Amino acid sequence: MAVYTHVPAEDMDRFLARYDVGSLVSAKGIAEGVENSNYLLETTQDRFILTLYEKRVDEADLPFFMDLLDHLAERGCRVPRFIGDRQGRKLQQLGGRPACLIEFLTGVSVTEPTAAQSRAAGIALGEMHRAAADFAGRRRNALDPAGWHDLATRCGADFDAIAPGLGERVRQELLWLDAHWPADLPSAVIHADLFPDNVLMLGDRVTGLIDFYFSCTDIRAYDLAVTHGAWCFAHDGSAYHADRGAALVAGYDVAFGLSEAEHIAFPALCRGAALRFLLTRAYDWINTPPDALVTRKDPLAFLRRLDFYAQATLPELLGR
Amino acid sequence: MAVYTHVPAEDMDRFLARYDVGSLVSAKGIAEGVENSNYLLETTQDRFILTLYEKRVDEADLPFFMDLLDHLAERGCRVPRFIGDRQGRKLQQLGGRPACLIEFLTGVSVTEPTAAQSRAAGIALGEMHRAAADFAGRRRNALDPAGWHDLATRCGADFDAIAPGLGERVRQELLWLDAHWPADLPSAVIHADLFPDNVLMLGDRVTGLIDFYFSCTDIRAYDLAVTHGAWCFAHDGSAYHADRGAALVAGYDVAFGLSEAEHIAFPALCRGAALRFLLTRAYDWINTPPDALVTRKDPLAFLRRLDFYAQATLPELLGR
Repeated sequence: MAVYTHVPAEDMDRFLARYDVGSLVSAKGIAEGVENSNYLLETTQDRFILTLYEKRVDEADLPFFMDLLDHLAERGCRVPRFIGDRQGRKLQQLGGRPACLIEFLTGVSVTEPTAAQSRAAGIALGEMHRAAADFAGRRRNALDPAGWHDLATRCGADFDAIAPGLGERVRQELLWLDAHWPADLPSAVIHADLFPDNVLMLGDRVTGLIDFYFSCTDIRAYDLAVTHGAWCFAHDGSAYHADRGAALVAGYDVAFGLSEAEHIAFPALCRGAALRFLLTRAYDWINTPPDALVTRKDPLAFLRRLDFYAQATLPELLGR
Repeated sequence: MAVYTHVPAEDMDRFLARYDVGSLVSAKGIAEGVENSNYLLETTQDRFILTLYEKRVDEADLPFFMDLLDHLAERGCRVPRFIGDRQGRKLQQLGGRPACLIEFLTGVSVTEPTAAQSRAAGIALGEMHRAAADFAGRRRNALDPAGWHDLATRCGADFDAIAPGLGERVRQELLWLDAHWPADLPSAVIHADLFPDNVLMLGDRVTGLIDFYFSCTDIRAYDLAVTHGAWCFAHDGSAYHADRGAALVAGYDVAFGLSEAEHIAFPALCRGAALRFLLTRAYDWINTPPDALVTRKDPLAFLRRLDFYAQATLPELLGR
């Protein structure tokens, strides 16, 4: 959430000269997204996002993301496309980093979604799933159940420094998920990180889905489970907002919908999604010095969600 | 250079509703300026900077800055004005911080100024001094010679951890400056921090002077000395670019000019300016953990400038 690589304006000028996008009139480093450096550029023609990829994003994955966003945009989804230069090249080098010029989308991210906004997010997710259905690209989800086991092993004894008993709780949950994780649900390309941060809105209208850098091939209904955990709770996980859950699922049903098998598996998918964010937050918590300027996100906010999902009824989760 | 206070979009909406500026369509936290939180906002009408004041800026000083920028803008200087709400109030509270909505100016900051750009900066500085001549506000410069002594005392024995002998070098320079600091030069409101970062340009044209949060009442020609140290050297202070120095001073002469007494005092003013940035950088260096995400700026880059100024001739500095 910072600008890691400083790009001189003179270098940006030279970079933009490869494209047919006008000349630079403003450039501001922005605090956004995963651990990349991002600039909001304004040219004589339009606004753009300039992204320099730092470390969390593997350059080899960029063509997958580029093709996916082209595919989704061609089917009417509001997603930020990668811009090609005059030779059609989208992947460049700048400041010693892989760098891309990306479409700018208006809209702001809500912090406390309303039910109407949750419904709009559900519709946008369903439309994305519909548009992605015939996308041929594939990318492995590094944060699948095998990845959770790996993360849990790496956190090891440090879990209990976050909260007493957390290590044992994670171990038991992994056992439960190993026994109950659905094996036969349809797999597809999913966003896998559709928090309110990654949805641009104007009022109750979605103007953009962004930050596809976790997108991958996995159980499609798991994407709705991730989104459910992200949109339907107080930030600290202390309260479930049933109205948002019902609206999110109703919106998804309008645009895509869950099968009967997906309905039945939904509580397990939600538990897995809650554990996935608990684990990555715990790992970052353990590996981030407390005085670093990067904000550490509380892992326990997702332990509370996990506790809720472990005892919730299907009607509570789906609103029907 | 980060966003310290996160402002939910919902709160920004409510904040903007006090103003006659349209409704929010985009908000990006930007990495800019001194230690404030800044957002680049786009509304249905225009773009704005939203600044939340964190700690380095004293709320009691804000009226001085507001009045100064109004005064300068009314006289044709391109500076970002503070925007008043429907009741004319410019100082608000947001996220528990003093907060202001500020005009957005286009332009980018150059990293390696050309002579033509240095000349444009000199003209803009001179025009600012002309426009400020009848400004009635006053603000003490906390970083005047008394402030340098204070900073040097607080750095104490830690100087030599930066470079062996640095403490003694600073002590000798303070003695020299005490004996040679000009007493009778005209005083006025100055910018006091006009680095290329704080000048927005398009090509060779200045489109804005920004970041007036160090502006204060002090020797007017000292402002040109600060600007000289900021624009006319390689970043690390290893080389003086005489062409930029000549162009900067020539530009300043076109718009305002130095008196004979100011010419004579100029080398001492440049030594003082170099010491001022050496001292604040040394203080920050000593008090910033090496692993903090904030970039520590090298104090020795200004020791090298100081060494240059201590032996330079007046024609070298002024280009004539």
